Amino acid sequence: MASIGLSVPPGLTISTEACQEYQEYGKKLPEGLWEEILEAFECVEKEMGAKLGDSSKPLLLSVRSGAAISMPGMMDTVLNLALNDEVVAGLASRSGERFAYDSYRRFLDMFGNVVMGISHSLFEEKLEDLKAAKGVKLDTELKASDLKELVALYKTVYLEAKGEQFPSDPKEQLQLAVKAVFDSWDSPRAIKYRSINQITGLKGTAVNIQCMVFGNMGNTSGTGVLFTRNPSTGEKKLYGEFLINAQGEDVVAGIRTPEDLDTMKQCLPEAYKELVQNCEILERHYKDMMDIEFTVQENRLWMLQCRSGKRTGKGAVRIAVDMVNEGLVDARSAIKMVEPQHLDQLLHPQFEDPSSYKDNVIATGLPASPGAAVGQVVFSADDAETWHAQGKSVILVRTETSPEDVGGMHAATGILTARGGMTSHAAVVARGWGKCCVSGCSDLRVNDSEKVVLIGDKIIKEGEWLSLNGSTGEVIMGKQTLAPPAISGDLETFMSMVDEIRSLKVMANADTPEDAQTARNNGAQGIGLCRTEHMFFASDERLKAVRQMIMAVTPEQRKKALDLLLPYQRSDFEGIFRAMDGLPVTIRLLDPPLHEFLPEGDIEQMVSELTSDTGMTEEEVFSKVEKLSEVNPMLGFRGCRLGISYPELTEMQARAIFQAAISMSNHGVQVFPEIMVPLVGTPQELGHQVSLIRSIAEKVFSEMGTSLGYKVGTMIEIPRAALIADEIAKEAEFFSFGTNDLTQMTFGYSRDDVGKFLPVYLSKGILPSDPFEVLDQKGVGQLIKMATDKGCGARPSLKVGICGEHGGEPSSVAFFAEVGLDYVSCSPFRVPIARLAAAQVAA
Amino acid sequence: MASIGLSVPPGLTISTEACQEYQEYGKKLPEGLWEEILEAFECVEKEMGAKLGDSSKPLLLSVRSGAAISMPGMMDTVLNLALNDEVVAGLASRSGERFAYDSYRRFLDMFGNVVMGISHSLFEEKLEDLKAAKGVKLDTELKASDLKELVALYKTVYLEAKGEQFPSDPKEQLQLAVKAVFDSWDSPRAIKYRSINQITGLKGTAVNIQCMVFGNMGNTSGTGVLFTRNPSTGEKKLYGEFLINAQGEDVVAGIRTPEDLDTMKQCLPEAYKELVQNCEILERHYKDMMDIEFTVQENRLWMLQCRSGKRTGKGAVRIAVDMVNEGLVDARSAIKMVEPQHLDQLLHPQFEDPSSYKDNVIATGLPASPGAAVGQVVFSADDAETWHAQGKSVILVRTETSPEDVGGMHAATGILTARGGMTSHAAVVARGWGKCCVSGCSDLRVNDSEKVVLIGDKIIKEGEWLSLNGSTGEVIMGKQTLAPPAISGDLETFMSMVDEIRSLKVMANADTPEDAQTARNNGAQGIGLCRTEHMFFASDERLKAVRQMIMAVTPEQRKKALDLLLPYQRSDFEGIFRAMDGLPVTIRLLDPPLHEFLPEGDIEQMVSELTSDTGMTEEEVFSKVEKLSEVNPMLGFRGCRLGISYPELTEMQARAIFQAAISMSNHGVQVFPEIMVPLVGTPQELGHQVSLIRSIAEKVFSEMGTSLGYKVGTMIEIPRAALIADEIAKEAEFFSFGTNDLTQMTFGYSRDDVGKFLPVYLSKGILPSDPFEVLDQKGVGQLIKMATDKGCGARPSLKVGICGEHGGEPSSVAFFAEVGLDYVSCSPFRVPIARLAAAQVAA
Repeated sequence: MASIGLSVPPGLTISTEACQEYQEYGKKLPEGLWEEILEAFECVEKEMGAKLGDSSKPLLLSVRSGAAISMPGMMDTVLNLALNDEVVAGLASRSGERFAYDSYRRFLDMFGNVVMGISHSLFEEKLEDLKAAKGVKLDTELKASDLKELVALYKTVYLEAKGEQFPSDPKEQLQLAVKAVFDSWDSPRAIKYRSINQITGLKGTAVNIQCMVFGNMGNTSGTGVLFTRNPSTGEKKLYGEFLINAQGEDVVAGIRTPEDLDTMKQCLPEAYKELVQNCEILERHYKDMMDIEFTVQENRLWMLQCRSGKRTGKGAVRIAVDMVNEGLVDARSAIKMVEPQHLDQLLHPQFEDPSSYKDNVIATGLPASPGAAVGQVVFSADDAETWHAQGKSVILVRTETSPEDVGGMHAATGILTARGGMTSHAAVVARGWGKCCVSGCSDLRVNDSEKVVLIGDKIIKEGEWLSLNGSTGEVIMGKQTLAPPAISGDLETFMSMVDEIRSLKVMANADTPEDAQTARNNGAQGIGLCRTEHMFFASDERLKAVRQMIMAVTPEQRKKALDLLLPYQRSDFEGIFRAMDGLPVTIRLLDPPLHEFLPEGDIEQMVSELTSDTGMTEEEVFSKVEKLSEVNPMLGFRGCRLGISYPELTEMQARAIFQAAISMSNHGVQVFPEIMVPLVGTPQELGHQVSLIRSIAEKVFSEMGTSLGYKVGTMIEIPRAALIADEIAKEAEFFSFGTNDLTQMTFGYSRDDVGKFLPVYLSKGILPSDPFEVLDQKGVGQLIKMATDKGCGARPSLKVGICGEHGGEPSSVAFFAEVGLDYVSCSPFRVPIARLAAAQVAA
Repeated sequence: MASIGLSVPPGLTISTEACQEYQEYGKKLPEGLWEEILEAFECVEKEMGAKLGDSSKPLLLSVRSGAAISMPGMMDTVLNLALNDEVVAGLASRSGERFAYDSYRRFLDMFGNVVMGISHSLFEEKLEDLKAAKGVKLDTELKASDLKELVALYKTVYLEAKGEQFPSDPKEQLQLAVKAVFDSWDSPRAIKYRSINQITGLKGTAVNIQCMVFGNMGNTSGTGVLFTRNPSTGEKKLYGEFLINAQGEDVVAGIRTPEDLDTMKQCLPEAYKELVQNCEILERHYKDMMDIEFTVQENRLWMLQCRSGKRTGKGAVRIAVDMVNEGLVDARSAIKMVEPQHLDQLLHPQFEDPSSYKDNVIATGLPASPGAAVGQVVFSADDAETWHAQGKSVILVRTETSPEDVGGMHAATGILTARGGMTSHAAVVARGWGKCCVSGCSDLRVNDSEKVVLIGDKIIKEGEWLSLNGSTGEVIMGKQTLAPPAISGDLETFMSMVDEIRSLKVMANADTPEDAQTARNNGAQGIGLCRTEHMFFASDERLKAVRQMIMAVTPEQRKKALDLLLPYQRSDFEGIFRAMDGLPVTIRLLDPPLHEFLPEGDIEQMVSELTSDTGMTEEEVFSKVEKLSEVNPMLGFRGCRLGISYPELTEMQARAIFQAAISMSNHGVQVFPEIMVPLVGTPQELGHQVSLIRSIAEKVFSEMGTSLGYKVGTMIEIPRAALIADEIAKEAEFFSFGTNDLTQMTFGYSRDDVGKFLPVYLSKGILPSDPFEVLDQKGVGQLIKMATDKGCGARPSLKVGICGEHGGEPSSVAFFAEVGLDYVSCSPFRVPIARLAAAQVAA
């Protein structure tokens, strides 16, 4: 900032590489680093005309983490570093005892807590005891002599907790503080945060050391934090908090309630004017919305820290669109300013009709993070994680959240706190995740031990339903109805910029006409995966016919059951073709093992039904069911292995598809059916199914007196298929990578069982992320690249895409684009995210 | 043969390519082929001074399959082709009516049966009726006029069976015969035979057409078949059968019992002398033991057919060793004369003490195929297959076998027939497979419908135990004791030639000191896979400790249980190290899912034990057991995933290995331990385990005051490990491909469930062979090659081998040698086979 002409307190930064070396070499400072730091300090001392530990002209420091991304668990700022008895004595004689001893006791508390690991509550206890003894309520009521007494008490805390004196050498303090920042990189909270947010590229944290400036030097001083635009809405207006006569931690700690920036405008108009100018300079320089910390010392504005500001999805989109309109950035840069996760927030539900729940609003807090949330109340982070794991939606209710709660906050669908402002821990973390949060709701009385919360006169117990509106701060009784989000306004503008830039197509995985419509609304350019088995579950009649088909002993029995299924399948396909008029629809033939269609556990009812429907004896039915069970169903009798063993099955499905296609085409719908054969591992398997499908097509075309174009292709989801993709491509008009199964087989991980060891693997760093969420580019990606190259080499017209769950995961989408795939297919709700990710890799 | 100066009847051969084209183009003769055949015949006609269908100078033909390998289901020879009423009339006037009409009726029978598909029994019926009507017993008692009558009757069989007249045009007969040979390539029996014998390279069968010579022209004529050496023992002495005044099918059909070649020496001394010379010429020319068909027509010897002779394993080894000694071939050629399957036969068991069962011998037949067999009696091929599938050893007892029985013969452990000589169907087929067979046991009276066999005065029912000595022809009551085979005599000589030529090392998979000793006796150069889990099952105490380990909730509980296991593991390793003194022993850490150690089905006893042993409640035990169950255990919590989640487990195993190694080393045993980490997919996994193992090594070395060299490496059995083998190699000193799991994951086939579709895949030709038996070189092999190249690129000293079941399969071993692996490891009994296969690829 200094380089663009803003006043910044002198200081120095220790690089992230130093932190990495520190971590790697047994938590020791890299050789020579300390000497370099001291050397650099000599320059600072010259510039400031002050010296570390000098009692007449002392240089005081603030030390903090300079991580590129702010994350919980990283060491908080230590202010006033380099104080000791001598320096304080000098300070007292120059700036008054009150200022000196207040600074000293704050430093002792902070340093003890964040550097030495002494619990803050031990210091707090001494403070409260003293206040009680002195008969005062507020810290500010303590006299200078009281503060001096407090300093002595704080020093005993060190002695009791650590068995040694507080380190009074300023250089030793500095070294300990630098190490504490480095160490905090590896704190469990920081690791958990990085894991949740999939932050893997960073190697460590930088350390910022700055000369102190003081916001607590009376009413011409103050301190504040701000965003250059509103991080929730994106509105172009400074958004922040300010405290007069205060130091930085007073704002963030939530002890004094911070005031609006307008307060600063009134009290310190000159400094405020300069701040506004500085914000404009910084936005022009960094071409982004900035998060700024500043201090005013005796009317002089100092810029302490500045980084890109975290924002909500809504904010990110508006800022990107506005900055293009303001001429600050071009479209290619703008689409990189919105993270795919941001869109995810925007695509989160809102309340269907906010006016309808007005009577049920029982309190209103701060609109800390927008969106709507509906869930059951829990009172601890652990409960939130447990209930979430059981598939429940929960609202985490806390007096205030602490970094220890981060796991439970992530698990919760919404967060409600009694205390804390818009920049409180809960608010900042929730906004980062786009999770609905209402903070500072002062009507709340939370009783953790009884697991109840009093809101006004209502008592709400654990497990009761509550709804939160994070955009208004409303807390609403009961389970309010949510509405799916829509693409309009800024988002619509933004998505059109996105679509102009990307070349990778985005399709959707959809099994019903309704899903197909949602996909289309979200901008899907076709259906990349329509799973026919879902149709088999759609009604009792269908399931009954499916079970007869499974139980069939002869091909004739099987055909009879399949004839019952044909009309259902045909009408489903008609609906989907209609919804996707003009766009391709890729239909996958039956994939799962047949026993998935049998009821779990008690099968008596099914057995009695089947004996009456098929004329088999109970014993025969049981024996057939027994035969269907498998040791490793994932690697068993499924996919094209079914259609090859029972060609009648493929015939029925192909017939249903072609009949539906011709019938819709006769109604003027533009139909582009693509039939996909699952679980192919050899060209012979695919060849078998392709010729069966083509022969059925010919039959249906001649029966119905007309024909149409269609494609036949295959899933590439078995490692062998990728290895011999050139041979497979000779039989296939398209490839669609099934990255779920491909990941299962490439790693040898059963997705159903991976929970037994994946958490250990992630926590020990054996895997950087869950490979079922983020594509493993090295292994699975290598197969995808190999298969794409071999496949297109053998058949240049080959269309190649993916339809696994990675199709909606941004870093994976970027990989697919780089490898040269034609399309990705993902769930309808993730289509906009995939569109953005595809554009970002092209931009 | 003609080219090396032997008399061969003129003729021509149609190539296998023509057969392939015929199969591919809808069973039509390739264009121009027929014209070429006719053209070629003009030359033959000129040479012979005779013409097809000419009544004064007719050219008669024999047509047969010329497949490189003789296989059941291929069309039998049709003799006397080109006969019709006119030709026979001419023949009668020149060679007598009896000869002419006997030839005619034989031709009609054979042609009707093998070319036109008319059941032989229909002809047989007419013959029997006529003999009854004429009051004679033997065919030879029929007069010329009777035979003429029979010809007329045979013609009515055609009319009744096919609705049309017998085709009298010789050229039409020839064309039909050629097509019938081509068609027989695709007969179910031929397909089954090729599938059983894994014959995949051949594309079709050639057709041999030869001018007829006649062995049935009185007592100066005859016909025979022979091997140039004894195919059972390898002894250098002509081994064959001869019939005076007979045609070829009389020898093979088993209707007249053929006589020894000595008969021929006495009756036809000149022809015999020439035959012996011819055999020597042929052996020198083909450098192999030959299988020969010949005919003597009025004292002139004609060589009809000659191919490499099928032989037993014992025969093959002796022939190879003898031919080297005779200077006929060098060692490199000789080792190719023994097929790996031949060794398999030699390594089959023999009776422990043949003298001990003498009193139980109830009959003696021909020693048709050597070795010993013990099994339960069944009377049909179907039963043999069914019982075999149930895991039973069966002896198939038949009056005589037919090609339809081929599946059951393969399933049986031994074959016993009442009829047929040493060249009967049963004998030839059994020898080809090295399966024990006793044929022509004339004391047998088989009653198929009652499922009993009368042997002398003993009645033996289905399911009773019988033992066969295929080397002596003895049939023995009850279940005699078998002894494992040993390498000595010719085999020892042969194996030393083998070992001089090969460079690929052969190790063994062995889990006990006994297995290790067997492996060593069979020439294993170390242990490539020692599975530690097998030790866990070895006693109730061990299993109890394992279950406590599994049930442990805290690391302390787990460690306590592991401490119980440590001494067991250590003593097992000591035994194995002792047995393998001077050779490397590769020990794999625990691999299977933990629930494999729990009892199947009823677990109540275990639960009550565990509640008393561990102090857990029953509910806790059940819930833990529940948690251990997996949807896809193959892809679940196993392999190094165990050792990473529970480092105590790896620590215990490493400790046991190092303690055992040091202790044995202190006793003067040379120990080379290699520790293998299973199921690795990422370098981080391996790195984790390697550092754990190395730290335990250091601890044990310092505790025991001495150290020794050891290696740590990994299985490559997960596709991802192969894909990133360069990274894995940085952590590994050796790779061992686990081709069983690698095949499972590369194909996505669960070995336990593949039975649901693999038979369909094999029968439809979707897979050429079971990939769990024969390595899939294209897919799995591609990964192996890739991983070997990448691994050795990253660490040139990397040792690379395989330890899956393919390590003992010859074609797979050849592939491993070509890819550049250092060793294969297979079951102890297959070590000699792997040694041979490795030498053959190097020869």
